[in-house]
Amino acid sequence: MKQGLLIVVSGPSGTGKGTVCGKLLAETPQLAYSISATTRQPREGEIDGENYYFISREKFEEEIAAGGFLEYADVYGNYYGTPLKKIEERLNAGQDILLEIDTQGALNVMKKCPEGIFIFLLPPSMAELERRIRGRGSETTETLARRMGAAKAEIAAGRKYTYVVVNTTVNMAVKNIQSILIAEHSRVDRNDDAFDI
Amino acid sequence: MKQGLLIVVSGPSGTGKGTVCGKLLAETPQLAYSISATTRQPREGEIDGENYYFISREKFEEEIAAGGFLEYADVYGNYYGTPLKKIEERLNAGQDILLEIDTQGALNVMKKCPEGIFIFLLPPSMAELERRIRGRGSETTETLARRMGAAKAEIAAGRKYTYVVVNTTVNMAVKNIQSILIAEHSRVDRNDDAFDI
Repeated sequence: MKQGLLIVVSGPSGTGKGTVCGKLLAETPQLAYSISATTRQPREGEIDGENYYFISREKFEEEIAAGGFLEYADVYGNYYGTPLKKIEERLNAGQDILLEIDTQGALNVMKKCPEGIFIFLLPPSMAELERRIRGRGSETTETLARRMGAAKAEIAAGRKYTYVVVNTTVNMAVKNIQSILIAEHSRVDRNDDAFDI
Repeated sequence: MKQGLLIVVSGPSGTGKGTVCGKLLAETPQLAYSISATTRQPREGEIDGENYYFISREKFEEEIAAGGFLEYADVYGNYYGTPLKKIEERLNAGQDILLEIDTQGALNVMKKCPEGIFIFLLPPSMAELERRIRGRGSETTETLARRMGAAKAEIAAGRKYTYVVVNTTVNMAVKNIQSILIAEHSRVDRNDDAFDI
């Protein structure tokens, strides 16, 4: 069985990462989202093992101590993390896994899983990013300034990724990421068996 | 100006390399064939600087001595070679260049131009390769055996390439190579300026 690829996509908030990843998943059958573990309560309709792995705070902290997460974060008092073992099982079964995380999480994944494919999504310009953030309509001058500052820090970290895709249009960005997947699957070092003909 | 990519495609005779490269060029506007220098006489309708650079034997050997060829070969008493300076000029102008050469030439290019993109085209199987070679109808048992032996040696050298594409169908092979070009153009180390936004 050919090993699946771990695809890590990051980009500053407002780049349209969610839209791009949603369309990418819908149009790429062999690619599936990573399922996170969390300590927050399930919301109505959420299914354990499908939307999240819902686990207790105690269990989560045990797993942290055991090095069981590829990356994790504490968000407003709830833990969210990527369970290493579950990811490895799915990669070994030939499944490509998409991980949509911030640069801080991604830099940790780079250390634990350097064979991952790290893709940074850029907005076409800072002016366009600002326009997209303003478009959501819920920003004050202060929160806008804070988000633009955070975006600049994320973009600086993006230089540590392997690939960069500019999200000029969602379709182009999806096509570029799909091309990166095809290319990475075509690497000779992942296709030893292809030469045994 | 963003630097163009040097794309080197090899594959055993009978793989359908010529058909794949022809279609790839027709469907990829930013990609152009490398123009070889040769000492053979121009045939009717051939234009200097378009089909080939036609040069004298003396000039060709001067260029060999000066290290002016990325690779060259003596084919039935005529020299053919890839002029390094011409390639560099076109790459610097942002043009992607396609070089369709055998593995011996490609291994030389790897040394002189390690930043090139080396793609090996495989037949789906040795049986299919034999069928394709037989299909040309001009093989004796002896020449067939010789060509199959040469194909095996070429395939063994293919493990030194970066990418492998199986030519199951021409369309799929072309799409895979185009994906490799898109992915390579998306590498962060080729897009420093994209982060200066």
